[in-house]
This record gives sequence, C-alpha cells and structure tokens, in this order.
Amino acid sequence: MKIIEDITEMHSLAMQLRHEGKTIGFVPTMGALHQGHLSLMQHAKKESDVVVASIFVNPTQFCPSEDYKEYPRDMEGDMEKAKGAGVDILFTPAVSAIYPEGYRTYVEVEGLSSVLCGKVRPGHFRGVSTIVLKLLNIVKPHKAFFGQKDYQQIVIIKRMARDLNLDVEIAVLPTVREEDGLAMSSRNQYLNKDERMSAAILYRSLQEARSLFEKGEMSTEKLKDAILSAFMGNSSAKLEYVAIVHPEISEEEKDVQKGTVIAIAARIGDTRLIDNIIL
Amino acid sequence: MKIIEDITEMHSLAMQLRHEGKTIGFVPTMGALHQGHLSLMQHAKKESDVVVASIFVNPTQFCPSEDYKEYPRDMEGDMEKAKGAGVDILFTPAVSAIYPEGYRTYVEVEGLSSVLCGKVRPGHFRGVSTIVLKLLNIVKPHKAFFGQKDYQQIVIIKRMARDLNLDVEIAVLPTVREEDGLAMSSRNQYLNKDERMSAAILYRSLQEARSLFEKGEMSTEKLKDAILSAFMGNSSAKLEYVAIVHPEISEEEKDVQKGTVIAIAARIGDTRLIDNIIL
Repeated sequence: MKIIEDITEMHSLAMQLRHEGKTIGFVPTMGALHQGHLSLMQHAKKESDVVVASIFVNPTQFCPSEDYKEYPRDMEGDMEKAKGAGVDILFTPAVSAIYPEGYRTYVEVEGLSSVLCGKVRPGHFRGVSTIVLKLLNIVKPHKAFFGQKDYQQIVIIKRMARDLNLDVEIAVLPTVREEDGLAMSSRNQYLNKDERMSAAILYRSLQEARSLFEKGEMSTEKLKDAILSAFMGNSSAKLEYVAIVHPEISEEEKDVQKGTVIAIAARIGDTRLIDNIIL
Repeated sequence: MKIIEDITEMHSLAMQLRHEGKTIGFVPTMGALHQGHLSLMQHAKKESDVVVASIFVNPTQFCPSEDYKEYPRDMEGDMEKAKGAGVDILFTPAVSAIYPEGYRTYVEVEGLSSVLCGKVRPGHFRGVSTIVLKLLNIVKPHKAFFGQKDYQQIVIIKRMARDLNLDVEIAVLPTVREEDGLAMSSRNQYLNKDERMSAAILYRSLQEARSLFEKGEMSTEKLKDAILSAFMGNSSAKLEYVAIVHPEISEEEKDVQKGTVIAIAARIGDTRLIDNIIL
C-alpha cells in the first residue's frame, strides 16, 4: 500500500492511472476505521483496478461546538486496517494543504443541507459537499463508495454529483452493524459501557417501526409514535429527531410506502448518533 | 465547426479528445459575440489542438431586476463569427439541461463575491462560479480563456479553480476596446447614439488616473478624485463605484503601486457598464 500525503502527487498518479486505462475506486473517510469503512474498501476492491482511500478529518464539517479536536484519530491502526482491506493507495493530506491560507470556496446543496441533521449542525453539509468535491477532483475516481448510515450525506453528494456534472458514480453500501444492531460509527468509541448498551435503542426503535409497516401500517404518525415510545423507555438516550421522508429527503411522506426512509438522530450522554432504514 | 447541444455528447467527445492526447482550449461565453470574444477564441486556437466555445445565457447570474430576458441573443450570427475565429466545437446547451428540475447546487467564493459588482448584483458571482464549474466539468479543457474586462469574475474563477483543485489553467487576455477606448461588451448594444458617446468616459477616467499614477501620484484618494471629477463633467454617465484594490481584490489599497487594480462600474442611461485597468 502506497501512502501519499501530497495533493499534487496524488493527482498526478490518478491522472496516470486513468491514462493507463485503470479504473479507480475511492473510499473517502475521516479515519478511526471500523468494519463499515473496511467493507466499503473490500467492495471497492472487487469493482476497481485500483482502490484509493483517504483519511482526512475535515474541519469545515464540524460546527464550532462540535468534537473536531476530540474526534478519534489512529493513523497507525488505520494504515494496518486499510492495507488489510485491500487499499492500494492511502491519501492522507494535511489540513493546511486542503485549506491553504486564503481558502474561501464552498459548495452548498441548497435545501437538502438545512433539514434533518443540517438543522442541528449548521454548515455541516456545506463542509461535507466541499471536501467531497475537492477529494473527487484530486483522486479522479470512476466510482466512490459511501455507507448508507450517512443517508442524508449520500443524498446530498448524489445531488451534487448530478448537478455539477461530475464524472463519477456514487455507490451506496448497506450499514454495517454490531451484534445488537448498533450502526458502526467512529463515534461509538465515545460511549461508556452503560451508554453503549443504551445505544442499541436507535436500531431497535427503527426495527419496531419496520415491523409495524410490514404488518400493514401506512401512517407516518403511527410509525413516529412507535419510535418515540421506544425511546421513552430508555432514560439515557434522547431522541433528537425522527424523520419519515421520501428517498430524496426533500419532503416528509404523508403515507409511508416501500422505499420511504426513516432517519433518526439521538444523544446518548454527550454522544450524538444517527441511524436510518429504508422500508 | 461542430455544434453540440447535448451535455452527454459534449462530455463524451471531450473525454475522447483527452484520451487521444489532444489539448482542449475553452472559451465560455453568453453569446452576442464581439471582437473581445473572438480574440479569446483566436488565442485559444494558437495554444490548443481543439477549441471549444460555449454559448449559454446563464439565468442564475442575473438578479431578478436584471436583463436576462432582454440580453442580446444572435445564435446565427454567433455561429458565423465563432467559425471564423477558428472554433472547432460550439457547445450550446439548453437551460433545462443545465438546470434540470430539482437543481440545487451552488458554488460560492465567499468574500470575493459580495464586494464591488457583487454588492450591487447579489447572487451574480454565485451564478457565475456555478456555471463555470459546470462547464469546466463538461468540456474538460486544459486551458480556459477569459477577458480582463470582467476582472472580478477572473479573480473569483481563479480562486475557485485553486480552491476546488480543478485541473485547468485559467488564462486572462487583455480587454479589447473600441477606437475611443470603450471596452467591448455585449451590453454596448443597448446604448443609443448619445449614450454610446458618453460611454467613452469609463476608459477616459481610468486613463486619467493612470496618467496621474505615472506622474508619481501614490494616493488612492487622489486617484479616486480624478475619476470622480472626470465623471462630474458627464451628465448622462453615473459612476456606480470606483475601487482601487489589490490584484486579488480582497482589500482596498492604501497606497497605489504597480499591479494595483482600478475597477469602475457606471450607468449610462439604463445600461450598466464596467471597466478596469491594472497599473
């Protein structure tokens, strides 16, 4: 596995690979790699000649009050894991190279950035779409791989790719979960033992809504109620929002149907977690 | 000269040309071509294997109160002129293809977009940077050519290209002028005979400031005064702003020096014109 920190070097190598007719698969990450990331890398390996993964904790997608400084970092462990998952090139640019002095250009997918998680995290998705666009321009992949856990992020990135005429396919892979259903996340590291047990409520509540839907319930309100009451019984988990929306998240569904997305965010102690299912 | 309206066809052809090792020079325009555009095309021809020009009157860079509907359009005349200037491919996408239903992604070069012309034309440069990014992604040029007349636009596009790690060189060519010094512009068509005569004041006032500078005057205030008084003697031209700024326009210069930019905007009747010089 080659490790590249320099942007120009990464860009030149990508151009060369394309020139040689190689297909490039790309997995952008913020590091603290877990099985969710690794499954994206393994999948990319199957579909591409060369797999590039990036590790970059992107400051512009954290709000001032958030955990940019505390965000888990483990470059050595990540290198081992990425190598094991079949990554050919690990791109690890410095913050000062990605956002040099005088940097001032941002991309916004309007409307989609200010709902759901965007309401609580102003500027978050502006930071996400900007860094993803920059990384796509540097790495020049044919296909980029994202996990379904970050559902709103995927909708935004797909929309951006289409709107800006980007030359890349956005692939979405299923959320990888712990045994009790908790979606894998780098932020799960923040949880203490009790919180870790409580955290299973996110997926459990989603499963209860799914089970209602499979029994024939079509009412958005009833499904929301099921999730709300699942959280009532859990004193250390605080539901931040539940949204039952059209797959493109542009509007709330009046009646639930196949393909409808249920997305939730909750705080377990100080840790904010998200999850979603597609009915 | 090949005329392409379809985005996918343009994009595929650009990919093919790049694959064949051809260099692509690109001149984006809003049509109503004049000698300024043609000189960009002729120059692109000298430096590139294939010259692509686009004609697209971009609705997102017009404010609601502005002249989008009235903006001069002359596709047949433009085709002749572009062909004569050596354009190989004329790209003429439809508005509905560039901004399909549900379109919602915009690029903003923050700070630079809200000063000078951006103050009077809110949203203008957001529209400019977005369309230029889209066109660059579709046409995939090695080099794109712009005229110095739109100085703020150039600074913004250069900054965007650098910030977003775009794979393109931005080339700037001198403003082409009428005999009396008036900068060529598609909007000059709006002027009646009297207004056309008055319009020469823009460049004449800039020349007076330059002449002062060449005599040793270093004071921003004095140079501004020279421009203001040049406009005083002209009853049908109304100076909108004069800015004496650092080449990157981020801040006003206290003392003028070589490289300082003087940019002005003025209204001649209902027509808004801009011009600038680099000292």
